[in-house]
Amino acid sequence: MNQPADSALRTALAYYQAWTSHDLDQAMSYIADDIVCDAPAGRLEGADAYRGFMGPFVQLLTGSRLIAAFGDDHTALIMYDTETVPVTSAPGAECVTVENGKIIYSRFVFDRAPFDAARMAGSER
Amino acid sequence: MNQPADSALRTALAYYQAWTSHDLDQAMSYIADDIVCDAPAGRLEGADAYRGFMGPFVQLLTGSRLIAAFGDDHTALIMYDTETVPVTSAPGAECVTVENGKIIYSRFVFDRAPFDAARMAGSER
Repeated sequence: MNQPADSALRTALAYYQAWTSHDLDQAMSYIADDIVCDAPAGRLEGADAYRGFMGPFVQLLTGSRLIAAFGDDHTALIMYDTETVPVTSAPGAECVTVENGKIIYSRFVFDRAPFDAARMAGSER
Repeated sequence: MNQPADSALRTALAYYQAWTSHDLDQAMSYIADDIVCDAPAGRLEGADAYRGFMGPFVQLLTGSRLIAAFGDDHTALIMYDTETVPVTSAPGAECVTVENGKIIYSRFVFDRAPFDAARMAGSER
């Protein structure tokens, strides 16, 4: 093992820092080309699909706060709250598997309900 | 400090083990009387409100799998997948604060959208 014992956590935090700073290019530098992400709406495969998912969300982001972050050399688990244009408090949690400084797998949990509600409210205007 | 360095994690895992075994009484033994839980639908205050929230969910539970669990002496962060009657895969994440072996605060994240969809599908029958 050449990796320090918290290397997955460091990658996850660097990734979090990048996307919450609206630096999508920097964020994607921590994402493996063949990432697999199990998100609420289904599985995303590959960096392009992942960027297509994160990009619009990052554009809506107006604030963020890290709630907790733990990890070891392979796995990190973080929870954060986000403030977005449609939803004031939209917390999320990510469990990521890291290899060679890149996230190769992500299990992503957040509540789609308030985003769905905001979308419906918008379409009713 | 009289607590071991992973005492919050041990409490969180014991709690998880209890409710995923459908032992709600045992699960509630790890919940402080004055627990505050920030859940997707809003804040729950007190063990009675918390039990009223967990009880119906545990009744729907048909399976569970721990995805990751980390913690220190005060805080634990866990992610798991659940299988429920209305929703086949309903992952959740909990960040809990523990004092004296009891969970005093929980931040709880899961996706309400598939439960809402199942409810609507049921009401349309």
